Amino acid sequence: MLYGKDRPPVLSLTPGPVPVYPQVLHALSRQIPYDYDQPFQTVYARLLGKVQQAMRLSNRPVILQGEPVLGLEAAAFSLIAAEDTVLNLVSGPYGRGFAQWARRTGARLIELEVPDDQAIDPQAVAACLAQHPEIAVVSVCHHETPCGTINPINAIGAIVAAHGAHLIVDAVSSFGGMNTHPEDCQASIYVTGPAKCLGAPPALTLLGVSERGWAKMKANASAPRGSVLSILDWEDAGYAGNRFPFTTSIADIHALDAAVDLYLDEGPEAVWARHDLTARAFRAGVAALGLRIWAASDAIASPTTTVMRLPEGISEDALIAAMRERFGVLVSGGRGPTAGKAIRVGHMGPAAQPVHALAALAALAGSLSCLGFPAQAGHAVDAAMEVVNSST
Amino acid sequence: MLYGKDRPPVLSLTPGPVPVYPQVLHALSRQIPYDYDQPFQTVYARLLGKVQQAMRLSNRPVILQGEPVLGLEAAAFSLIAAEDTVLNLVSGPYGRGFAQWARRTGARLIELEVPDDQAIDPQAVAACLAQHPEIAVVSVCHHETPCGTINPINAIGAIVAAHGAHLIVDAVSSFGGMNTHPEDCQASIYVTGPAKCLGAPPALTLLGVSERGWAKMKANASAPRGSVLSILDWEDAGYAGNRFPFTTSIADIHALDAAVDLYLDEGPEAVWARHDLTARAFRAGVAALGLRIWAASDAIASPTTTVMRLPEGISEDALIAAMRERFGVLVSGGRGPTAGKAIRVGHMGPAAQPVHALAALAALAGSLSCLGFPAQAGHAVDAAMEVVNSST
Amino acid sequence: MLYGKDRPPVLSLTPGPVPVYPQVLHALSRQIPYDYDQPFQTVYARLLGKVQQAMRLSNRPVILQGEPVLGLEAAAFSLIAAEDTVLNLVSGPYGRGFAQWARRTGARLIELEVPDDQAIDPQAVAACLAQHPEIAVVSVCHHETPCGTINPINAIGAIVAAHGAHLIVDAVSSFGGMNTHPEDCQASIYVTGPAKCLGAPPALTLLGVSERGWAKMKANASAPRGSVLSILDWEDAGYAGNRFPFTTSIADIHALDAAVDLYLDEGPEAVWARHDLTARAFRAGVAALGLRIWAASDAIASPTTTVMRLPEGISEDALIAAMRERFGVLVSGGRGPTAGKAIRVGHMGPAAQPVHALAALAALAGSLSCLGFPAQAGHAVDAAMEVVNSST
Amino acid sequence: MLYGKDRPPVLSLTPGPVPVYPQVLHALSRQIPYDYDQPFQTVYARLLGKVQQAMRLSNRPVILQGEPVLGLEAAAFSLIAAEDTVLNLVSGPYGRGFAQWARRTGARLIELEVPDDQAIDPQAVAACLAQHPEIAVVSVCHHETPCGTINPINAIGAIVAAHGAHLIVDAVSSFGGMNTHPEDCQASIYVTGPAKCLGAPPALTLLGVSERGWAKMKANASAPRGSVLSILDWEDAGYAGNRFPFTTSIADIHALDAAVDLYLDEGPEAVWARHDLTARAFRAGVAALGLRIWAASDAIASPTTTVMRLPEGISEDALIAAMRERFGVLVSGGRGPTAGKAIRVGHMGPAAQPVHALAALAALAGSLSCLGFPAQAGHAVDAAMEVVNSST
Repeated sequence: MLYGKDRPPVLSLTPGPVPVYPQVLHALSRQIPYDYDQPFQTVYARLLGKVQQAMRLSNRPVILQGEPVLGLEAAAFSLIAAEDTVLNLVSGPYGRGFAQWARRTGARLIELEVPDDQAIDPQAVAACLAQHPEIAVVSVCHHETPCGTINPINAIGAIVAAHGAHLIVDAVSSFGGMNTHPEDCQASIYVTGPAKCLGAPPALTLLGVSERGWAKMKANASAPRGSVLSILDWEDAGYAGNRFPFTTSIADIHALDAAVDLYLDEGPEAVWARHDLTARAFRAGVAALGLRIWAASDAIASPTTTVMRLPEGISEDALIAAMRERFGVLVSGGRGPTAGKAIRVGHMGPAAQPVHALAALAALAGSLSCLGFPAQAGHAVDAAMEVVNSST
Repeated sequence: MLYGKDRPPVLSLTPGPVPVYPQVLHALSRQIPYDYDQPFQTVYARLLGKVQQAMRLSNRPVILQGEPVLGLEAAAFSLIAAEDTVLNLVSGPYGRGFAQWARRTGARLIELEVPDDQAIDPQAVAACLAQHPEIAVVSVCHHETPCGTINPINAIGAIVAAHGAHLIVDAVSSFGGMNTHPEDCQASIYVTGPAKCLGAPPALTLLGVSERGWAKMKANASAPRGSVLSILDWEDAGYAGNRFPFTTSIADIHALDAAVDLYLDEGPEAVWARHDLTARAFRAGVAALGLRIWAASDAIASPTTTVMRLPEGISEDALIAAMRERFGVLVSGGRGPTAGKAIRVGHMGPAAQPVHALAALAALAGSLSCLGFPAQAGHAVDAAMEVVNSST
Repeated sequence: MLYGKDRPPVLSLTPGPVPVYPQVLHALSRQIPYDYDQPFQTVYARLLGKVQQAMRLSNRPVILQGEPVLGLEAAAFSLIAAEDTVLNLVSGPYGRGFAQWARRTGARLIELEVPDDQAIDPQAVAACLAQHPEIAVVSVCHHETPCGTINPINAIGAIVAAHGAHLIVDAVSSFGGMNTHPEDCQASIYVTGPAKCLGAPPALTLLGVSERGWAKMKANASAPRGSVLSILDWEDAGYAGNRFPFTTSIADIHALDAAVDLYLDEGPEAVWARHDLTARAFRAGVAALGLRIWAASDAIASPTTTVMRLPEGISEDALIAAMRERFGVLVSGGRGPTAGKAIRVGHMGPAAQPVHALAALAALAGSLSCLGFPAQAGHAVDAAMEVVNSST
Repeated sequence: MLYGKDRPPVLSLTPGPVPVYPQVLHALSRQIPYDYDQPFQTVYARLLGKVQQAMRLSNRPVILQGEPVLGLEAAAFSLIAAEDTVLNLVSGPYGRGFAQWARRTGARLIELEVPDDQAIDPQAVAACLAQHPEIAVVSVCHHETPCGTINPINAIGAIVAAHGAHLIVDAVSSFGGMNTHPEDCQASIYVTGPAKCLGAPPALTLLGVSERGWAKMKANASAPRGSVLSILDWEDAGYAGNRFPFTTSIADIHALDAAVDLYLDEGPEAVWARHDLTARAFRAGVAALGLRIWAASDAIASPTTTVMRLPEGISEDALIAAMRERFGVLVSGGRGPTAGKAIRVGHMGPAAQPVHALAALAALAGSLSCLGFPAQAGHAVDAAMEVVNSST
């Protein structure tokens, strides 16, 4: 056992939090300024501008001072009124979990659910909306990390917009790693965060809120105000010297600032290509081992996380432990429907590198063969290499 | 103008967030681990133990993943049931502000208010409780930083306990800088945070919850669950490998870990003495300049922040700017009742050093005299020195 | 081209300076103390103790404030007197280069040279000493990084000691990565540094000096004194509060301190095993590709750097560029005799991980095949995996 | 005793190494790159350009990989030939110490010495040169930190240039804190470093070498080559991808890079003014206490270090300990002629702030009075304030 469990892994390939980019780590060690002194006001205002650019928004973004679970809960309570009917789209545990907040607003909830290895069909959404013209809000999780599946939010968004409803999107683990932006899917509220594909630490939420979204929240008498769950309180915060509703998470703001710089400097298209290539290479290796990803098809497989079904006779814990202890490669287990049945390998931010896919495949195959499952590392690596080498 | 507003100050003496201790800054730059991998689990579990020791708790503390305004809101909603009668003690803006949350629970609210330069009289609390035997929860802010005043929470706590009610304490800006602990004041929930006297960045809440507090929360059907506002969700989080309800603020946890180590290593009594001496020296200097603190008496003046009334004809903005630009000393303006009428000088964590009080007094007097108010720096410094030199 | 030359590589696998361990990076950001204040004196004195433990010395080590080229030059001038006869053992460029300093002392120089892909034969040393009884000093480079070859310094040391001569050892790129210590080879002066297998930044030299070594230096009237080249000046520096001859490289001392802690905490034997396994796996992969290492045999191949001969028709620059640009894997070119004919892959400190060998082999094969050389990544990885998986 | 000797001081006001600027500390934690990979080559080449700008050189500077004692020794051996006659100007220990290196070159040495509280008179230099037309090299220390005195190097340089001799200047503790540059004093070699007024860690030397200086070194057959003492080896290093003679001190290079940015961003004139104002304020306070600086007159007192004579009956150790332990203010003792007779207070880099002078004066007076010497802190502070407040 080369790598005891008390030692840090060599490669951390989980669906997040991810090890941050070196420049982000470096930014974390900036001294903590007083939040109302000019230097920090300047940092914050500039960061808002850079986040707007990264999210390709035509209006101003909001940063909330808590990780995206805060943003999702805040979105539910801010946008959904008690008199609304909500259509919650469910293709995995995160979509399923959103229902708890939607219900608590007092709204009526309708759910459209598909099996956990599939994606929502936009036509089914259209049909449901046609059947329920009263639906005012639709909610969807873009990337179900427990399943490694991607929902077609742009198509869904077009249908929801045509219907005149509002869309809430959970893009926590997809934004920054693929071509997705709030206005592409016409979201009223689009929620993401820094600790996945942006390669920063967790503790903040990035929100894109459309003008329609703002209007609906402002009209919602029960939208949180004077609360950490309030989005409205933060509408103007940090702009033009406006006060923050409460103290910002300064160290995390510094880190996000560096992460957004990196994202814009590398070029979003280049970053997405790096994620996509890594995931495709990894999936090719999995297939070469005779194994299957969780997602029903490659077409809906995520470019930021691969969920791989365990072969017969291999336990999740044993495989994770073997990869961790023998090779220093840290992956995650399944969650919800995939718990005990799969491992999850993140391709996010600094971990989204084809060479890490090659290394992870080798470690995976090497570990499987130690556990008694016949897996030839070379097959996996050759298949992945074909993907990588055909890319340029 | 030596120090332009875009340059960082030389000495930041605000009521927080404070510049962090060097070792805390250093801890911020630890690589971000996966929160479910063993090394971080170990860090978190050990941190909980150290926080328990620092808070001198006989049971386990809770860390919430947001700055203390989250903790206070969570405490209100978790502890107060709609059928409760709440006595809110008000001696300044933070006490006053707590009412908004208490009211939103649906509870009946009674307020006992004193002028903003005074402290709550425990006997008045006793009288009020006698008059309203139905009071189930009492809330109090220990240190009103806008006013620099300290409420006698231990005495209040004894009265509340005798009455059989629950006490919620906001000790955000006092804990770590003076002798105060949850069990000293018999609090059911005691809320504090890292960015004041502990000298860490903002973004977390430390909670002491008594066994009675847990029992009341659990009995409260409307206490938040499945929410960022839930305290109940975090009861066992991080202990014995229990899952976190959602991703922790890892960088801030690293920083808090270093800050608590420093606090325990220096010795709490030594830390408090350092805060107290700094504040006493500063107040002596203020008096020597013929100026007055906001607090009606020294007996209720805070050891962690001094609020000084502005002399006639000196504007808050002008004085803050002069200290900042000529001397690089950053202080805060008033807030709420003291806005425009006072400056606030923090003596917190790494800033709680007698030599900083001497420097700040010199900068204060030097700035006042530039603005036309006759202030002799030497008088202020001599008065402060007498305090410092008689201390050892 | 995924990785432009202005972007940092994903994996830096060079023969040093290596990317430092995270904890070392972290230590670099400690505030710079005044070197004569007690806290730094304590750090330095404790570090000397830990270095003594790591080098397994029975007497006290010396830290010089410059990278090991300073230490080697200082060793030559300090130990060698003008009247000495020196036997310089040459199996590569570093051994060859040492002659320049030895000659400049005025000493008579004899050289025993083997081809650059071979190691010194201890019996040849014995024969040479027998032939030249006047030889007073023998110098040898333990690990020729340009060639990836290891000289048998313990056997040589025994012969030199039996002869009564002094041995100078350059163990810059071997110490910390394999089982080698000053007293194992009976060196009078043993020179190493932090930027190779210890995983710290360059800028310091670690010296083991035997009692005989000290005696000879002290007897040498021309040994540098009052010079940055002086070893004698530093004999007692930092012990028991003794003054430093000049200002120490404080940031680098902090980093070394963390690196030595890591080395001792992981356990030297475990660290060596990790280096050895990584190198053996890498070499197995190279062989599986039908390629050859530079070293004439595996028996003399270094566990800390593999030098691989380029196949016909593949240029060094093109291969390095392909690995860097397509896979983000940085390796070095040849140097001296191997320049233009080989690539060098470091297995040092944080880079000495079997999973990095697997990744590097994949990147190597993938790059070779892009350049037209038939290389199957899977073969290389399978061969390496067999080594890794048979190790535990 | 508030500040035990194992705890770091609050304010470190020594003549260096100084606590570094926060941005420099931050730069230290950049990951260590391979020195021959493009990103570091770019950093190094740009840094050379910025150093050239900071030193206001018309040709390219040199960075040596060791603290300035290396640079001074290298300058002596590189520039001085055995056949030269050298005039060494001595006004303190550093000037006196330079003789050891000058003598070792084999050159003939003439010394012009003044008492340790005085500065060299340019007319005496002129007279000496007239008397010894054979003098080929003149050496001078600009700022004797042990004495706090400044020599008039620009005037001396003009005289030396008129004579046709070469000037070696030790400007280690003045450059960056006052208006001094290599070409202002027509130095052939001008030596400075980062750990004083630039506010970076020690471990590097910055050299300005004039074209005449290069020519003389190249003509000097005994100038070091193939040695850490060689300046010639580094002439082109790092320019246009040229190889480094040996591994650079990468972490220290990162730090210097940040420090030079800060110097240029704040503006050299503003930085000098800040040093000057701090020193003048401090000296005014010393005078107000009835005490004297070491320098015979204010005209030759350094703006970067004040050396204060101890009053009768006060021991150096006791005063340093009192300031350190009671106030957390760290100052240095005397050195050489001032050892045991003075304390030295640095005004360098981040410590060169008028508010630190005020704090240090208060701590000084407070400590003196504890030790039985009648010192009124207020007098000192008022005198210093008058200087500060009349400055803007």
